[in-house]
Amino acid sequence: MPHNHVIALHGGAGVNPARDYSEVEAHLGALVRECEEQLAAGASAIDVVEHAVAAMEASGLYVAGRGSAPNDRGEVECDAAIMDGARMRAGGICAAIGLVHPISVARAVLEHTPHVLIAGDGVRRLAEEHGLALVSNSAAHYRLPVGVEPEELHRLDSGLAHGTVGAVALDRQGRLAAATSTGGLFGKRAGRVGDTPITGIGNWADSALAVSCTGIGEAFIYAGGARDIAARMSYDDLSLDAACQAMLEEVARRRGDGGVIAINASGEVTMAFNSPGMKRAVAGANRSPSVAIF
Amino acid sequence: MPHNHVIALHGGAGVNPARDYSEVEAHLGALVRECEEQLAAGASAIDVVEHAVAAMEASGLYVAGRGSAPNDRGEVECDAAIMDGARMRAGGICAAIGLVHPISVARAVLEHTPHVLIAGDGVRRLAEEHGLALVSNSAAHYRLPVGVEPEELHRLDSGLAHGTVGAVALDRQGRLAAATSTGGLFGKRAGRVGDTPITGIGNWADSALAVSCTGIGEAFIYAGGARDIAARMSYDDLSLDAACQAMLEEVARRRGDGGVIAINASGEVTMAFNSPGMKRAVAGANRSPSVAIF
Repeated sequence: MPHNHVIALHGGAGVNPARDYSEVEAHLGALVRECEEQLAAGASAIDVVEHAVAAMEASGLYVAGRGSAPNDRGEVECDAAIMDGARMRAGGICAAIGLVHPISVARAVLEHTPHVLIAGDGVRRLAEEHGLALVSNSAAHYRLPVGVEPEELHRLDSGLAHGTVGAVALDRQGRLAAATSTGGLFGKRAGRVGDTPITGIGNWADSALAVSCTGIGEAFIYAGGARDIAARMSYDDLSLDAACQAMLEEVARRRGDGGVIAINASGEVTMAFNSPGMKRAVAGANRSPSVAIF
Repeated sequence: MPHNHVIALHGGAGVNPARDYSEVEAHLGALVRECEEQLAAGASAIDVVEHAVAAMEASGLYVAGRGSAPNDRGEVECDAAIMDGARMRAGGICAAIGLVHPISVARAVLEHTPHVLIAGDGVRRLAEEHGLALVSNSAAHYRLPVGVEPEELHRLDSGLAHGTVGAVALDRQGRLAAATSTGGLFGKRAGRVGDTPITGIGNWADSALAVSCTGIGEAFIYAGGARDIAARMSYDDLSLDAACQAMLEEVARRRGDGGVIAINASGEVTMAFNSPGMKRAVAGANRSPSVAIF
């Protein structure tokens, strides 16, 4: 009997209560329906999470891909990671300049190298080797994501000026996968890497669960992120919900905020956050599509 | 009453049974004595682990600092991380070219930025800002570490051609710290980052334990590394020894090998490995200095 497939998306934990997110809600709603249909038709979890994150990167609506944030040198650096829980294989890229599809370059690390993480200039070279698109005109490519004001572009301390997109999925064969991508923290120091590209912290999938995090990356690194959730479930017998909440409480103790989307092998979904909101959507075999921001 | 201070060092899990390691044994023995004396005199754990790793980097005897491995473009890229468990602050650098003291640049990330990890060109800029030395003549600076044959320089699959150095310490005030540094995997793809610079995986310190890992970094990332040891102790009530062994068994399941040095707040020390050997040394208030390779 096929598993009850499910897909969950997040568009980042940085939200501005004064802004209109209807464009984001419409985008997430259409995307989560499309991904649910792909899963219903038999697509693999790893292909669907890559597709979902690539669509969010391409939209420019979120702080990832086209909506990425310039660092303190005015350059856009991207981080991304993807993991196939069925194969226990992951790929990640960090501090990479000039990628049109960061998540697809992370997928290339997963598929075509023995490594888990590639940084800096080496990422661009890998993208070129695999014929993946590079940004030829930065000014035309990048745009200001929804909810971010131009004056926040260089304010590192803005609670809004960070964002990440992510997707977790369970497919009809019971395989779990996760993908996460970020254009970073506005005004960050060049080369700064948060939790997003770190397999086990910002992104993780195995045979039991799939997790994608968003928020203040440094706090997630100190709190342990995705694998801390997995550890609380496997060593401490916490439920998926309780494990996600406990990890987020630790993020708060580390003076951070953010959120997490997670799915387990039974198709249970948690979408938890301790920030003012988290752009999110979910759909599945037994779930009507739903979208929320706050 | 002051705590019983202790220092443990590793010089990497890549060893060649056919080689003479007497130079390494002499170096580790002298260094662990020097670090023990610093701790006895009241030095902080964070200063002592930085000193220990900097001395190993400078020696050229290990695959870190001067003994680093060229990547597939012939460039030396370094990764390092350091964490002060008392302050719960960490700093790391990855895929960084041209650093004389990688661990001291990681310390600069810890002390002078709000970030935990800096990658690529941004690392060199940070080093320059803080007056940290850069390599001016690569040919004169780098040397072949002990136990590595010249023909292994470009063989990614060589079990010997990887290495990492690390130190964990408990000081008289009961503070724990860890530092880890690597010159990577011989013949690795440019930009490849393993577990070493990842706070929580290759390196970790908090109020309960300090951990430094060495081995096939990808397998440590899949196994969870340092924070998996911490999780097994705090969520599953395993001893330090049992937690380290359990994590290393998971590394083996991920087709990797390597080792770990760990200290807890009571001053217990574990130095475990599932590779043919691990260059290691330990000394403390209640421990005569000892050095071993196999």
